[in-house]
Amino acid sequence: MKRRDLLLAAGLSPLVPARAFADAPRPPADPAPPGAAASDTSHLVAVAESLKPALRETLQLPLSLVRPVAAPSAALRWRMESEGPVEALAGRVLKKGDAFTLDFGGHRTGYLSFRLVGVGRGVDAPARLRFTFGEVPTDVAEPLYPYKGGLSSAWLQDEVVNVDFLPQDVRLPRRYAFRYVKVEVLDTSPNFGVQFRDVRAHAVTSADAALPPLPAGVPEDLRRIDEVAAATLRDCMQTTFEDGPRRDQRLWTGDLRVQALTNYATFNNTALVKRSLYLLAAFPREDGSIPACVFEKPFPFQGHEYIADYAVLYGVAVLEYVRATGDAAAGRELWPTVKRQLELVGRHVNADGLFADPGGVWIFIDWNAALDRTASMHGVLLYGYRQVLELARLLGLEAEAAAYPERIARMTAAARGAFHDPARQVFVSGPKRQVSMATQAWLTIAGVPSKAEAAAALSAASRMPDVVRARTPYLNHYVVDALLLCGLRREALELVRAYWGGMVAAGADTFWEAYSPEEPLLSPYGDRHINSYCHAWSCTPSYFIRGRGLA
Amino acid sequence: MKRRDLLLAAGLSPLVPARAFADAPRPPADPAPPGAAASDTSHLVAVAESLKPALRETLQLPLSLVRPVAAPSAALRWRMESEGPVEALAGRVLKKGDAFTLDFGGHRTGYLSFRLVGVGRGVDAPARLRFTFGEVPTDVAEPLYPYKGGLSSAWLQDEVVNVDFLPQDVRLPRRYAFRYVKVEVLDTSPNFGVQFRDVRAHAVTSADAALPPLPAGVPEDLRRIDEVAAATLRDCMQTTFEDGPRRDQRLWTGDLRVQALTNYATFNNTALVKRSLYLLAAFPREDGSIPACVFEKPFPFQGHEYIADYAVLYGVAVLEYVRATGDAAAGRELWPTVKRQLELVGRHVNADGLFADPGGVWIFIDWNAALDRTASMHGVLLYGYRQVLELARLLGLEAEAAAYPERIARMTAAARGAFHDPARQVFVSGPKRQVSMATQAWLTIAGVPSKAEAAAALSAASRMPDVVRARTPYLNHYVVDALLLCGLRREALELVRAYWGGMVAAGADTFWEAYSPEEPLLSPYGDRHINSYCHAWSCTPSYFIRGRGLA
Repeated sequence: MKRRDLLLAAGLSPLVPARAFADAPRPPADPAPPGAAASDTSHLVAVAESLKPALRETLQLPLSLVRPVAAPSAALRWRMESEGPVEALAGRVLKKGDAFTLDFGGHRTGYLSFRLVGVGRGVDAPARLRFTFGEVPTDVAEPLYPYKGGLSSAWLQDEVVNVDFLPQDVRLPRRYAFRYVKVEVLDTSPNFGVQFRDVRAHAVTSADAALPPLPAGVPEDLRRIDEVAAATLRDCMQTTFEDGPRRDQRLWTGDLRVQALTNYATFNNTALVKRSLYLLAAFPREDGSIPACVFEKPFPFQGHEYIADYAVLYGVAVLEYVRATGDAAAGRELWPTVKRQLELVGRHVNADGLFADPGGVWIFIDWNAALDRTASMHGVLLYGYRQVLELARLLGLEAEAAAYPERIARMTAAARGAFHDPARQVFVSGPKRQVSMATQAWLTIAGVPSKAEAAAALSAASRMPDVVRARTPYLNHYVVDALLLCGLRREALELVRAYWGGMVAAGADTFWEAYSPEEPLLSPYGDRHINSYCHAWSCTPSYFIRGRGLA
Repeated sequence: MKRRDLLLAAGLSPLVPARAFADAPRPPADPAPPGAAASDTSHLVAVAESLKPALRETLQLPLSLVRPVAAPSAALRWRMESEGPVEALAGRVLKKGDAFTLDFGGHRTGYLSFRLVGVGRGVDAPARLRFTFGEVPTDVAEPLYPYKGGLSSAWLQDEVVNVDFLPQDVRLPRRYAFRYVKVEVLDTSPNFGVQFRDVRAHAVTSADAALPPLPAGVPEDLRRIDEVAAATLRDCMQTTFEDGPRRDQRLWTGDLRVQALTNYATFNNTALVKRSLYLLAAFPREDGSIPACVFEKPFPFQGHEYIADYAVLYGVAVLEYVRATGDAAAGRELWPTVKRQLELVGRHVNADGLFADPGGVWIFIDWNAALDRTASMHGVLLYGYRQVLELARLLGLEAEAAAYPERIARMTAAARGAFHDPARQVFVSGPKRQVSMATQAWLTIAGVPSKAEAAAALSAASRMPDVVRARTPYLNHYVVDALLLCGLRREALELVRAYWGGMVAAGADTFWEAYSPEEPLLSPYGDRHINSYCHAWSCTPSYFIRGRGLA
């Protein structure tokens, strides 16, 4: 892993100079009043807060007792083996050193509750228990420590709990993302053991319980991919669209755009999209740029990162929201924010009509330090102008976007000149003329090549052995999108089957934050135990299958 | 430590045969209804529950930041050194690996609260904190693990806490017994640190805030001993009289008797004594014997231990309650329980009028495996008959105790014959004719020797180099009592000064469960980190100073 990735992984965008702790303005060193936004955006917070959904809680029973078994040839290196029916648990008396692992089947975001009963000649001490929650077998099969990751170990899903007086109904206060729960009895006393009764998961989500049925013709493997994708979205839908329920739990602009798209095609909770769009607009930085993310708890406040491509995609998300709902009033209220993002990023378009990386700005595109982002970012921005022009028309605000058509034309022409490699029939990026799937995808989405050119470029690139491929479902979403846009429907389907289907084959119940078929245990953070295995940006197969008819 | 002590330490009284877990009747394997006592004693539970006190909570500020410094010549091997004023804490930003220790000055039973604020460029993760609560410097100066004790490690006063969203007001849910709090920041994220603001202890007790002033003539050192003793009782006075607020937290008959005595001379919460006496009577075993202790939470239930000397002392505690309050109605209601204890223990008095250890019965007397308990237990039982006869007279129930005077006379005479060693002028116990302070004290209290004989025996024994001395404040209470009874006032005072004063000199803020001047780090449980440093049975100097005029 390169230094830049480490920096990014740590959220250390070089754009914002590190400040001495003492004068850090946000979040407030002393508690600010909830929703302490700049005065002119406080109504945006108010709208967002009025749309905060009540979560739906579903009680779920564990399905079986399991134990992890090493499986060196499996993608995650472990598989689960049944240890017997879960009914056996209530009869077991556990003492110091005893442990068990429950499989709840599938993934959920939620809580754990149980009744802890002391059994023995004297229940004369507290019980001390250790819980480890796992999204995948790896989480509970391998020791979490020593932890080597760059992100806070406070995200690790383990917890030591003392239950002082037995019997007692216990509901762990912390929310977890899990399928598996490993429970270790650290101690009782020599006089008693404990029984776990009525162990329950309490799944929470703001997604509807009912998912519309798939069209009849969708084949079985795609049905499973859709099911896993929808579960991914469901478990990320809380009081905002979270990026991942296990870690970060934040609303990010880039993630939101693809979550919202998938949401329209599935659960269609449009109020949650509106709330999320308003939250992102409510905490602009001094120059009016919106943060890459906002925090929601204990009260909404501005995230400290800025990501240029995410800022551009904000407008795309607003357009899609207005299209999905007809809520032009919201579109107009958010219009100044949308427009300002293009103005700010558009400043880096040089006299030749090319986006010129000013340095020090976080351009995400993908979790891949090796990726040259020049052409991709040009594509994102150009796509942003096109979509936001559509939004202006939809809202009757063409005058506001009067300069866009000329800019779109100039940037399109410039891209053809700068990035196209006619000899190889692909688009390239950077001084080393790097060929990446990101570049082909984003220039295609931006409308730079013709359909035929795009198809040729995507096909040629994907056959090159040294092409820089996508390492996240997020970028692969845009690759699939581009394949569909230029008519490569079969290839789009193949990619969904190979990439998302690869995760399903590896045992995924929800789709992962990072996945590379060659490196299934890849971590952008230096320790796979901090990876998120239910990550919003990977939910889009349901969008393609349901919203784009991919099947 | 001998096997017997280990057994006892583990609560494994050999009287009750170990049962298979599955058929253990109490506490109920499945939750019994609260207060599920035998039907004929349920009204006793009802009375006890009606007397459950509301606790008084006092907010307390930490006094300073401290750090432990090795002090090999100090009794506890560590002393605390100031690290600066506590005001410095609010300004400190703590990151992964940082730690501090607060000194709240003195001991309390209670809770900890604070405001945790994130400071930095991005408060983007939970904070994971480890708390260690210490009654004495040893608790926070030395690692608690690996733990070597025989009691449950779940009693150890350490806790790992995740605070998911900052800023947040946190009140740790577990109650602790402490003067010191060590806080370690296990992790934040690279983007922020935490500040601790408004750190507060919430002391809880059912003792009155105001302690009656000591008589003017009491010298300074005894004032300090009284203060520490009263603090010990205060911190053990919760919704029952607990034996120790740090561990066990249980109502034990033997502890109650000396706590109640001290309570009458200090806080005088007589309702709490009544509640405690009723709770102990409410959960008889099948033969009518009362358990050595009862548990109070989550609902009152029977403890699994039986201690013969404690059962006898129950009647003494009832007598003293009736004397202190005039509540003869309660005395009459508890009379059958009182009488039954003597009947049951009295069965082991043989034809010679001597208590004969039937084997397998837990006779406590002191934490000391080397102690021969024959003579002491005889003394306890004889004392029990004398006091319970007094109780019968006070309640107008002489007819119920008609057989007692003859039995008292016979046991007194038998004791003189069996235990007195005229050549050495002491009382001895067991086949090896062991001389112990326990034997001298209990036979004196039981009225076996004349005052002069008792004085001679106590003086002679205390001068013998191989005398078995008391290892707990509990037995030393009875030694002081005996010294006072036979007029050795100066020696009683000397013992209080040497023994309890020794703990004060070693830094005690409350008196300890176990203390031996030669072995200040003695543990009855195999690990000093599980010792209780605020233990009810050590609170009696306040009784002697205030109630018996010792000064």
